[in-house]
Amino acid sequence: MTVAKTRVASHNIEGARKAVEHLGWQQAVDDWREITRADDIDLVDIVTPTNTHAEIAIDALEYGKHVLCEKPLAASPADAARMYHAAQEAGAIAQAGFNYRSWPAVDAARQIIDTGILGRVLGFRGQFLHDYALDEAMPVSWRLRRARAGGGAVTDIGSHMIDLARYLVGDVERVLARSTTFYPRRPVSSPDGDDLVDVDDATDLLLEFGARRPGHILVNWMMAGHKMEVGFEVYGTHGSIRFSWEENSGRLWLHQRNDHGPANGFASIVLGPQHGDYQAFWPLPGVGLGLAESYVIQAARLLKAILQGDPAGPSFLDGLRVAEVVDAAIRSADHGEWVTVDRHTAGRARVGSGRPASRS
Amino acid sequence: MTVAKTRVASHNIEGARKAVEHLGWQQAVDDWREITRADDIDLVDIVTPTNTHAEIAIDALEYGKHVLCEKPLAASPADAARMYHAAQEAGAIAQAGFNYRSWPAVDAARQIIDTGILGRVLGFRGQFLHDYALDEAMPVSWRLRRARAGGGAVTDIGSHMIDLARYLVGDVERVLARSTTFYPRRPVSSPDGDDLVDVDDATDLLLEFGARRPGHILVNWMMAGHKMEVGFEVYGTHGSIRFSWEENSGRLWLHQRNDHGPANGFASIVLGPQHGDYQAFWPLPGVGLGLAESYVIQAARLLKAILQGDPAGPSFLDGLRVAEVVDAAIRSADHGEWVTVDRHTAGRARVGSGRPASRS
Amino acid sequence: MTVAKTRVASHNIEGARKAVEHLGWQQAVDDWREITRADDIDLVDIVTPTNTHAEIAIDALEYGKHVLCEKPLAASPADAARMYHAAQEAGAIAQAGFNYRSWPAVDAARQIIDTGILGRVLGFRGQFLHDYALDEAMPVSWRLRRARAGGGAVTDIGSHMIDLARYLVGDVERVLARSTTFYPRRPVSSPDGDDLVDVDDATDLLLEFGARRPGHILVNWMMAGHKMEVGFEVYGTHGSIRFSWEENSGRLWLHQRNDHGPANGFASIVLGPQHGDYQAFWPLPGVGLGLAESYVIQAARLLKAILQGDPAGPSFLDGLRVAEVVDAAIRSADHGEWVTVDRHTAGRARVGSGRPASRS
Amino acid sequence: MTVAKTRVASHNIEGARKAVEHLGWQQAVDDWREITRADDIDLVDIVTPTNTHAEIAIDALEYGKHVLCEKPLAASPADAARMYHAAQEAGAIAQAGFNYRSWPAVDAARQIIDTGILGRVLGFRGQFLHDYALDEAMPVSWRLRRARAGGGAVTDIGSHMIDLARYLVGDVERVLARSTTFYPRRPVSSPDGDDLVDVDDATDLLLEFGARRPGHILVNWMMAGHKMEVGFEVYGTHGSIRFSWEENSGRLWLHQRNDHGPANGFASIVLGPQHGDYQAFWPLPGVGLGLAESYVIQAARLLKAILQGDPAGPSFLDGLRVAEVVDAAIRSADHGEWVTVDRHTAGRARVGSGRPASRS
Repeated sequence: MTVAKTRVASHNIEGARKAVEHLGWQQAVDDWREITRADDIDLVDIVTPTNTHAEIAIDALEYGKHVLCEKPLAASPADAARMYHAAQEAGAIAQAGFNYRSWPAVDAARQIIDTGILGRVLGFRGQFLHDYALDEAMPVSWRLRRARAGGGAVTDIGSHMIDLARYLVGDVERVLARSTTFYPRRPVSSPDGDDLVDVDDATDLLLEFGARRPGHILVNWMMAGHKMEVGFEVYGTHGSIRFSWEENSGRLWLHQRNDHGPANGFASIVLGPQHGDYQAFWPLPGVGLGLAESYVIQAARLLKAILQGDPAGPSFLDGLRVAEVVDAAIRSADHGEWVTVDRHTAGRARVGSGRPASRS
Repeated sequence: MTVAKTRVASHNIEGARKAVEHLGWQQAVDDWREITRADDIDLVDIVTPTNTHAEIAIDALEYGKHVLCEKPLAASPADAARMYHAAQEAGAIAQAGFNYRSWPAVDAARQIIDTGILGRVLGFRGQFLHDYALDEAMPVSWRLRRARAGGGAVTDIGSHMIDLARYLVGDVERVLARSTTFYPRRPVSSPDGDDLVDVDDATDLLLEFGARRPGHILVNWMMAGHKMEVGFEVYGTHGSIRFSWEENSGRLWLHQRNDHGPANGFASIVLGPQHGDYQAFWPLPGVGLGLAESYVIQAARLLKAILQGDPAGPSFLDGLRVAEVVDAAIRSADHGEWVTVDRHTAGRARVGSGRPASRS
Repeated sequence: MTVAKTRVASHNIEGARKAVEHLGWQQAVDDWREITRADDIDLVDIVTPTNTHAEIAIDALEYGKHVLCEKPLAASPADAARMYHAAQEAGAIAQAGFNYRSWPAVDAARQIIDTGILGRVLGFRGQFLHDYALDEAMPVSWRLRRARAGGGAVTDIGSHMIDLARYLVGDVERVLARSTTFYPRRPVSSPDGDDLVDVDDATDLLLEFGARRPGHILVNWMMAGHKMEVGFEVYGTHGSIRFSWEENSGRLWLHQRNDHGPANGFASIVLGPQHGDYQAFWPLPGVGLGLAESYVIQAARLLKAILQGDPAGPSFLDGLRVAEVVDAAIRSADHGEWVTVDRHTAGRARVGSGRPASRS
Repeated sequence: MTVAKTRVASHNIEGARKAVEHLGWQQAVDDWREITRADDIDLVDIVTPTNTHAEIAIDALEYGKHVLCEKPLAASPADAARMYHAAQEAGAIAQAGFNYRSWPAVDAARQIIDTGILGRVLGFRGQFLHDYALDEAMPVSWRLRRARAGGGAVTDIGSHMIDLARYLVGDVERVLARSTTFYPRRPVSSPDGDDLVDVDDATDLLLEFGARRPGHILVNWMMAGHKMEVGFEVYGTHGSIRFSWEENSGRLWLHQRNDHGPANGFASIVLGPQHGDYQAFWPLPGVGLGLAESYVIQAARLLKAILQGDPAGPSFLDGLRVAEVVDAAIRSADHGEWVTVDRHTAGRARVGSGRPASRS
């Protein structure tokens, strides 16, 4: 392999050129195969519309590249399964871009659950609330078309929260969903565009984990006043943890039922270097991390996986598992009934850093 | 009518005597008919187990009494409908004890919705989270038996939030629920008691208001760390309001999309005398109200309804409407599918202070 | 003594009559001596301008009455000392109206300090911020004249916080103050009124407790946006507690340095019946108390002191001690230097419920 | 000038070598003159103990380098003045490392003050609270010796807040301070070390801005439970803004007295790309910034100043002005009286990006 190059591909070559200049990279091309099949490229980062992920990722994997693919992994579980199997085949590092896994509160939450101080986990609540699509004048884009995006809010932002639910509690077995499209028609973005929105603006998603444990995830991208409410709560027989980005992205809250001191409510965990591998960004607790830094952490974990064999963060199997839940949610919302999450892997799959099926 | 007396009835006469002494009232009796049928009583306050409300309330109404009945109004919509019709018949003031209607944030929320600054209301979120039943050693009481309580968390605390959803957004047309009982068996409270819990500890309740507007209510009384999370959010095309008791029971938060000043998030409404009829308790905004004071407000509204004909607060019709939603929720949870809320009133009922069926 | 009567006195007899009607009391008089010297009165509550407290209170005490006197106790330490000595002489219950002593967070704070888990107390911070006088059109009232009120913000709202500082940490030995009057002239309130404001709108007050321990109190009644920021923090070698009314009046926050669990920040104490004598208002933690209820608690403690000999809450000695600190603060602000707090009691005074001189 | 090199100097050459490796830089040297006087260096970043700043910075400036000097600029105003004059002489970019100027809340605060919506600014409050020195076992380091650090908490963390006060309100004319050293003796850090601490652990600092406007700054690095409480409030005749890092570092709060909408308290400004030059880190509001990113912003501003002549952020004149206030504070604390801030510049100095003397 020759010395690695940095290269941006886009069918819009002007856009690619601007990106190259902005990033200080080396080359702009209009055919992504000049990246996926190039000898001087080691790692491919896919940030195209969701329905194009599979073809690009599989091509890259077949040509021996490591891959970081933006979430959601694919527009269907079938595509996600093909991607996962291609990664298995290639023996490459294939990471799904669920970047909230690189947020210290999530690492701290998992650490705490693992200590057992919450007792038996009873359930999970999560929410991702935003005002992204509140403006009725926002034109139809690929994110608002099921064929290209796989779904709407439940797919785009809901997939993050489904990934966290799996990571913190375990696999989802059944779902019940209700989806709402507040504006079924929006302005077209190009003269020959379609004004139809065929995805959800909001989805209420009831989850059933193993051992019939309940969970729910509330997803809404038309919620006035919310810019970034990423929140979750895991509650058990002996305590609970909760997190809310909008309240304070640098705190995790913990309640311990058996802590018989004077404090009987939630106690704050000021996130800091003791929580995960964030030391480069905060030598001291309390100084705060930015979302952009979480992308750097994600990239660092990927590079360590490639170079040192460390765990890679959310794998393509994690991405597949999320896609299966999203697919079940969309089918449930279409029919108004509980849907069992179908597994698209044969036999017992190798599990990456995602949680094993059962964590009761 | 002779001069009114104050009297407490309980089948446990010792308990009644203690209550009389504690309250500085006049008389203890062991048969509630000595209250409902007495000439020297004007107003009956019913705080017995839910399945006994109907018989007592209807008796009181037939004997010309005004009635304040603890929520939920009845253990079944059929009972609630009988109570409602008895109140209609008697022409008496019949109030359901949904005391959060007497909380300033709720009045302020309704005022704001009525101004239209939220635009068209898109949806509702509500939650009532508590740790009431977290301890597995808590014995089975009437609240944990469907026959006596009508249901569990969804009935006991969920009914409050259903009432607020109706009050702020409008009638609920369909529901989809999932209920969980974390401890199906608990210690018995008496030698011949039953250890079976046949009600929910937690219910996720999806609502559909008129015009297919979505809502959800999360109810859970086994959630470690929560003592009193009564919260709601109403979001519209041009703004939203939210409230959380645990965050700050004296604030309502408002976001106005078209407020083009520097503040782009939620703004605080410091509750005070301008919000409703609370002046007796707070001459100035910000000084705070206690939950006990909300019961006094509720009682004051009831007395003003009796004496001056003012609106009485939540009526038996409101109580019936809530019972219908609770009943639909329980049926939905039993079958895992959407259930249309059945109306138990013939023709178009007179609506009390509850919201009319449509508020879009 | 005959059966007690309820009576309101005011030089404005019409005002007295309205108060009598509003309160459901019995009689209005225009000479307060018809209360202080009446045989059918047991307890006198003084709510007149500050400079009139001494004459009325001393008269009442000399005529055998118990007294509740609004804070600040007097417009000068000399007056406060005379009142204190009169109460000593009479052997009556003489309570100063520092009603925040009847707030559960204060009781909880004192309980926690008494356990020693904060280690050695290092210092105190307090603040009382309000917008009471922000409007430049607010006319000059007695509260804005030193002769009648004794001082401005430091006297009116600062005295509350000085009382809490003494209660939680101990007596103040020296003070250094800086006062600001933002509007030295305001509209007159009557044709022959004066437009001069000769009191402070804001005072920064540095305290020195025993053993040279530092404290500070920030008082400001022209601070836009603040309606009721009553806050304090007590920090020690091993922990600290903090309280902020505006943040959440039903929480006290505790940090314990030696709590080596995962929670490394502040933990919430959800105030409830376990904290002091508030059970009548909240059978459960978390339901919240209103400021009006704290006045009822204050009155209940007074009545229990009279009837059962219980501690009466802040005594006239506490009121005197606060007046001494306020006086020192005003002198310090006038001269810009440290001032030792003068004691206006001879010998070692009997201390009421206030803290003894040293609590290190 | 030849192609620039990256070089780390430390008298501890091993430490320098480790830093070079960690940073991916080029060369380690043990004499800082190999940096300040090198032909292949353009920019010197000084992070040594405070009392060494002047010699190094002046040398670097005399040899034609641009300089970024860690705050506080110097251990005395005299040193700071020499540094400032050297920078004037050299015509170089000389930046003081007050990195909180690169925090979006500070830019947003200044934008809001500049709009005039707060009316006439009445005063300022600020605080910097930390637990850095809480542990009595922390050995004496250079930060705890006046000769090397210039002072303690007031110098180290207080200087940040003094800089913000000047930036947001204007120059400080007089100060009154009270300092406390909780542990005057601590373990020695080396066999021949001294156990004496001769700097403050806590300082209460009263400020007087122009037109006698009041301010105060509370500094404490022995406050249990605080990791990073950087907070300020600017209040005016028509509104106020406040910020608290520990509450939420991504929010600024605004109250507008004349906003007659329903919201009467503080409204949240969700910080985002519209506030200053942070777009590289957050394309959307609400995603949050980390403290480490503020150092990158600071460096970017410095580079833009060097390369494009943009404003450089806090200049050596700003650093000098802060040093003058710190010096006055230390003298005031030593004598317990108001001290006028001495100016160490002759004539009217060119003002960098700091605020002019008067901003009323």
